Amino acid sequence: MSFGFRDIEEAQSRIAGVVYRTPVLRSINERTDGAAEFFFKCENLQRSGAFKLRGAYNKIAALSEPVRRHGVVAFSSGNHARAVATAARLLGTHAKIVMPKDAPAVKLQATRAVGADIVLYDRYRESREAIAQAICENEHRTLVPPFDDPLIIAGQGTIGVELHEQMPEFDLLVAPIGGGGLISGVATALAELRPEVQIYGAEAEAANDTFLSLQKGERVQIPVPKTIADGMQVTSPGKLTFPIIQRLVREVVLVSEQEIVEGMRWVAEHIRQIIEPTSAVAVAAARKLATRFPGTRIAIILSGGNVDKQRYRELLAGKEV
Amino acid sequence: MSFGFRDIEEAQSRIAGVVYRTPVLRSINERTDGAAEFFFKCENLQRSGAFKLRGAYNKIAALSEPVRRHGVVAFSSGNHARAVATAARLLGTHAKIVMPKDAPAVKLQATRAVGADIVLYDRYRESREAIAQAICENEHRTLVPPFDDPLIIAGQGTIGVELHEQMPEFDLLVAPIGGGGLISGVATALAELRPEVQIYGAEAEAANDTFLSLQKGERVQIPVPKTIADGMQVTSPGKLTFPIIQRLVREVVLVSEQEIVEGMRWVAEHIRQIIEPTSAVAVAAARKLATRFPGTRIAIILSGGNVDKQRYRELLAGKEV
Repeated sequence: MSFGFRDIEEAQSRIAGVVYRTPVLRSINERTDGAAEFFFKCENLQRSGAFKLRGAYNKIAALSEPVRRHGVVAFSSGNHARAVATAARLLGTHAKIVMPKDAPAVKLQATRAVGADIVLYDRYRESREAIAQAICENEHRTLVPPFDDPLIIAGQGTIGVELHEQMPEFDLLVAPIGGGGLISGVATALAELRPEVQIYGAEAEAANDTFLSLQKGERVQIPVPKTIADGMQVTSPGKLTFPIIQRLVREVVLVSEQEIVEGMRWVAEHIRQIIEPTSAVAVAAARKLATRFPGTRIAIILSGGNVDKQRYRELLAGKEV
Repeated sequence: MSFGFRDIEEAQSRIAGVVYRTPVLRSINERTDGAAEFFFKCENLQRSGAFKLRGAYNKIAALSEPVRRHGVVAFSSGNHARAVATAARLLGTHAKIVMPKDAPAVKLQATRAVGADIVLYDRYRESREAIAQAICENEHRTLVPPFDDPLIIAGQGTIGVELHEQMPEFDLLVAPIGGGGLISGVATALAELRPEVQIYGAEAEAANDTFLSLQKGERVQIPVPKTIADGMQVTSPGKLTFPIIQRLVREVVLVSEQEIVEGMRWVAEHIRQIIEPTSAVAVAAARKLATRFPGTRIAIILSGGNVDKQRYRELLAGKEV
């Protein structure tokens, strides 16, 4: 499975007119002299509330019509589920989403609201992969994986193409890393279009699987991380994404849970956006990089904004995490 | 003092490259069939946090250099103060802002942070107009009025030009009305560029001075309104703005305090923006218009996002207002 910039260009033409071209924002407040300048690519404003729609839509749109007609399957309780359900609906097909029985009711509802069927499983006794596989075989459906797939990576990479078109000049890019689909797509796009830009990844300290894997030079498996950044509950970088990260990402910056919360508040104050904790991981990392590289222009990808209202209020208040 | 579209075009060239071209957002959630479609012009993302920078910058930039050098004066404790202070700084001059002694510390601080001097007064014993006038005379400064000035109205009108460029088609426009500078500028721009668009104003029930004035056919004075929409604490429409509103605004929609709070929550859920209550007045009015005119495309101006963090949390929680 080769993957390259050409795949991203193809994705760009597939998603055009359906997936939103999200804005790039700057702070409403005046900058202190010499400080780094931040630019925010707002995927929290993407249709379905997260960048995940890009990859999901690209994957499903690339299926041949007879294959697509049978529908798709995904296992996820978060942004990927909602993105697959939304993309399926937009493309006139149907999604089944495998979700744990104890997933928050609000997430089940959000996924059902876009017309998907939910298949519940017991996460202590059953394997979601096996369930999804069985559905695919019985119903001739296609699995839409969360990150380790060339079409998914290419879809996320379209953010890099848009950044290139939207921003005159920038020096650094910071993106959060879960499975690595987002950063490997964007890094591939920028390696072609803006080879001078330095790419940095961001992980929560507790979800440092990519950080450790880069240190060791091979994919490391960690226990399911305990972090408020729920988009980072991944235990290992992908088979496809990891080599791209090794080649193109300069460094992974780790941030604490407290820094994530402060990042959410910083964003409320400076760009008036509601973001989810995973996005704030990139913000927190960028703030650290800003002190190391004053005067630079830093592009930050805000990956999503799907945060529970009650949770968001608590985080804004600074309750202990 | 004549005022027309030409003034807005001149304002557009004065503010270009300094005042942000704010994005137009759509909901991240899929729309129900037949429902009206909302588009949000996000002045909460404007430099200084509100549309007010457009008018203030246009006014100060239009002063001749020898006049501008002596500095400017404004009386306001809200977005206008911050906008005048920011514009003065950006144009290399200096602002003095007349503010009540009992203004919230956070607002004094925000205005000082952009380099303005604050002149405190006792609002029960002193007249802020008289104080501002005295400063102007003694220091040869120029007064920057909050709305009733052709250069201010022209600056706010640039939002209409941007909407015309950013939006393919829309049927209705909804803007909040304080003193009327925003809506009269935008309505003048759209009367020229999109004469088919119907313009609606939005006021809080308690701040219905323009609603009443339109009914009576002349400017009506009301007591200082008690509403969470602090940008609407104006007791009468302007001498210049009112005739424009009479000519170009189809109707003023009134909304309750509860509807304003629900508007803020709707915006958090659908477009992930933090807005101030005055912006939510327009959102609440648009939601009412949507039930009257299903299937239409409604552009809504979110006027600003400068809301106290604690206050915002309470509103999000649905505490009684």
